[in-house]
Formats: sequence, C-alpha cells, structure tokens
Amino acid sequence: MTGRVAIVGIGPGDARYLTPEAAAALAAADALYGYGPYLDRIAVQPGQVRHRSDNGAEQARAVAALEQAAAGISVAVVSGGDPGVFAMAAAVCEAIDSGPDIWRRLDVVVVPGITAMLAVAARIGAPLGHDFCAISLSDNLKPWDCIVRRLDAAADAGFVIALYNPVSRARPWQLGAAFERLRRYLPPSTPVVFGRAVGRPGDNVTVTTLAAAPTTVADMATLVIVGSTATRVIARPERPSLVYTPRSARGAHA
Amino acid sequence: MTGRVAIVGIGPGDARYLTPEAAAALAAADALYGYGPYLDRIAVQPGQVRHRSDNGAEQARAVAALEQAAAGISVAVVSGGDPGVFAMAAAVCEAIDSGPDIWRRLDVVVVPGITAMLAVAARIGAPLGHDFCAISLSDNLKPWDCIVRRLDAAADAGFVIALYNPVSRARPWQLGAAFERLRRYLPPSTPVVFGRAVGRPGDNVTVTTLAAAPTTVADMATLVIVGSTATRVIARPERPSLVYTPRSARGAHA
Repeated sequence: MTGRVAIVGIGPGDARYLTPEAAAALAAADALYGYGPYLDRIAVQPGQVRHRSDNGAEQARAVAALEQAAAGISVAVVSGGDPGVFAMAAAVCEAIDSGPDIWRRLDVVVVPGITAMLAVAARIGAPLGHDFCAISLSDNLKPWDCIVRRLDAAADAGFVIALYNPVSRARPWQLGAAFERLRRYLPPSTPVVFGRAVGRPGDNVTVTTLAAAPTTVADMATLVIVGSTATRVIARPERPSLVYTPRSARGAHA
Repeated sequence: MTGRVAIVGIGPGDARYLTPEAAAALAAADALYGYGPYLDRIAVQPGQVRHRSDNGAEQARAVAALEQAAAGISVAVVSGGDPGVFAMAAAVCEAIDSGPDIWRRLDVVVVPGITAMLAVAARIGAPLGHDFCAISLSDNLKPWDCIVRRLDAAADAGFVIALYNPVSRARPWQLGAAFERLRRYLPPSTPVVFGRAVGRPGDNVTVTTLAAAPTTVADMATLVIVGSTATRVIARPERPSLVYTPRSARGAHA
C-alpha cells in the first residue's frame, strides 16, 4: 500500500481564490501539513489531523509529509499562492530526489493556485502583460551575485520583473540594493508596484516610480513588480491608476 | 451612470480551475465578451448576452466591451488562463489608454486565473521552483530580434523559461529557432516539458531534452517549459517522471 501526497496551492489567502480542485484535495486528505497561518485559512474536516510548522521549515515539513504518505496516509501539503513558485512543490521534489526509494512510488499531485504576482498584477491592471520574469530576492538559498546577474539580464533585455521575498528581518538591505542595480538600466520614471497581503484583509497596493521607490515599506508579505521601459500608467479621475505593459513591442508605446 | 468591465480569467479550461471570484464575476455580468471556445466553457445565465469573437480579435473585443460598459452595462471580458499574462487585461488597458475620456471613469476589475505555465508545471512536478521567466514567441507583436535577445539573456542568466504561443499556422519556424538559440547556452540534457491543452479533455504532458525536443508536436494550445542547468528529472518506477528546479542555487544540484 502506498499513500498520496497532494501539494495544494490555496492562492493569496481569501477563499474566493481557492479553486474547486484545491478545495477538493484539501477535503480528501487525512492529514494536512503547512505553515500555521496557511492552515488557519482552511475549513476544518472531522478526523483530519493538522501538522503546523514554522515558515522556513519547508524541508522538514516535506520529509514529515512523505514519511506519513509512505505509511499509507493521504496527506496534503498546503502552500500559499501556487505551490510551484518559490514554494512547497520543489521542496517535496527535493526530498523525494534524495530520499528512500519508496518515496518514488508515491502518488504525487500538485494542485496549482493563484500566485502572488498574478494577484497583485490583477489589482493594478496588467503590468505582466508582456514578457516578464520572477526572481526571489532571498539570498538564503543562492549567492547574491547570482541575483544581481539575473536582475541585470532581466532589466537589460526588457522583462518586467516580479520580486518575491523582497525583505525579511534577516535580509533588510536586498531590496534597496536591487533597486539601485535596476536604476543602471531603467529610467527613473519606470513604474514600480508594491502589493502587500493582496487577497487578504487589510491588503494594500501602491504605485510609485523606480526613482522614488521606498525600501522601508516592504515586508515578507509584499510582492514588488518593477516595470520595463514599455510599462505605462493611466491616470484616472476618481479611480486608482492602471498600470499595464502593452502586448506589442512594435507600437507607439514601445 | 457608468458601467463596469470585469476581465475574468477562467484558468486552463475545466471548471475545477475556476475560482469562486471568477465564477461570481461571470454570473454578475449582463454581457460576456470572448473567444468562442472560452465562452462555451461558461455556465449560461438567463438574460445574459454573449458576444463571440475570433482569436486574434483582442483589440476589437476590448473596444466593443468598453463601449457597452460606457453605456451603463456590466460586462465581463473572458480570458483563458490569467487575463494578465499575454491576454485580455493588457488589451483592455491599451484601449482605455488611447480611447475617449469616459472610458477612464469606468470601474475596471481584473480577476486572476491559473495561467498555463502554472498548470503545466503542476502536472510534472515543480520546474518553475526557482527564478523563471515567461516569453511569448509570437512575433506578430514584437520583432524577432527582441525575442532572441530575451532568450539569450534568460538562458545565460539561469532562468527557467516558459514559452507561450510557441507555434501557429502563420509562425511555423519560431519554436525550432528558439531551441537552436537556447542550445548555445544550455547543455543537450536540459529538460524540456511540452504541455498540450492541460486542464482540458485529452490533455498531454511530455518530457524530453533540449537535444531531442521536437518542433512539430507543438501547436497554439501548447505551453513549453525549458529548464535551466539546475533543473532535474526524477525517474520513478510505475509513475511518470517528476521535473523540478531546486529552490537552492547553492546546494549540490546547482
């Protein structure tokens, strides 16, 4: 008998973003594994066991879930946003890759979700409307010079850039250093969007420019989008501005 | 009186990917605008008018929807996947930016959805588990040399690459040319994933290598993911292989 591991994306937080597939996968599990605040967003099922762990304990959580699944239990590993974007799906795959053979026989299912950059982009217009990239600013898992090289390449080649994990208590300076780096390639007027806790109570989205972008307002719950030279802002009377990147790099706006 | 425009992402196709927020936005609209096959996937509401248009008619569809909204109608513009990723949200913003002042007074809401790269990645493991980018291979809207520059930059800097719009009848050679270009930077063994019609009946996901990647199996319904040098394949007995990119660029796998 082998169990099942579902790695389930719950989206930005509110139940209105939870897909029917994700809701069904959560309801069908015997045991849930996840960061405490994510588990708190999920409806309780009778008889279902919850294993809470800290943010940052991804690898230990993946191993614990796989051990339970190998014992024949149906487990769900809960991920904020999409599990495949800087989240639990890679952690579970890493554990399987370096784990016992029996873990390769498990039924592994990844259930996609709305990742933060899509939720933030939707709140402000269409900043990701043309070629874009996603970069994690966490240098816990890669050297800072690798991050700098990717920022350089993305800005120089005209990608819009979504920055995940921009700031934490242990990483206070990285976002400012990233903005400094991007100013080498992008004009001061380049639109920058800060989205904080989007899709949850008290969320907040602000638009600024690369010249004026503050580094003190972001935290672990913030997603930052830096436009390309093609990204535009539409000012609107009595409405929030719209930020978008045209689909065409040939038109008048390119 | 001003109307409302909701630009709604329905995800890859099947209702199990439709978020409650998207379902509510579709149900609340007086009129739906969209590519015919997308409209066919949506539950019919009594009294709701449907305006079908061809794929490729994005700008005319956006203008028609905004004209109706300016007349006080609540309209929904239906987008496959996520409306912000190579889709209708940018088309609507472009129309507003170059349209009459009254369009800037409309209530504009973008409802995010599961975009194709997230659905394909979920089916195969976690290929987007580390820094990645999304590039449209359509050169209808940008010069081919711009696409080449972005492929070069992304591969050289270590991004995993999701290719949208890889092939169409009018663009038969671009995917092959992109693979040729990427072979300058990436080893022959680099994993490549083809996902066709993922989330719809008859969907299909295959894993190959950059050396062996065919250019004849992709079509307009295909999303291609090209790994980085860090991307790994886990062979599994009696199960499909898992493809993932480790979260760490520092570990043994980097």
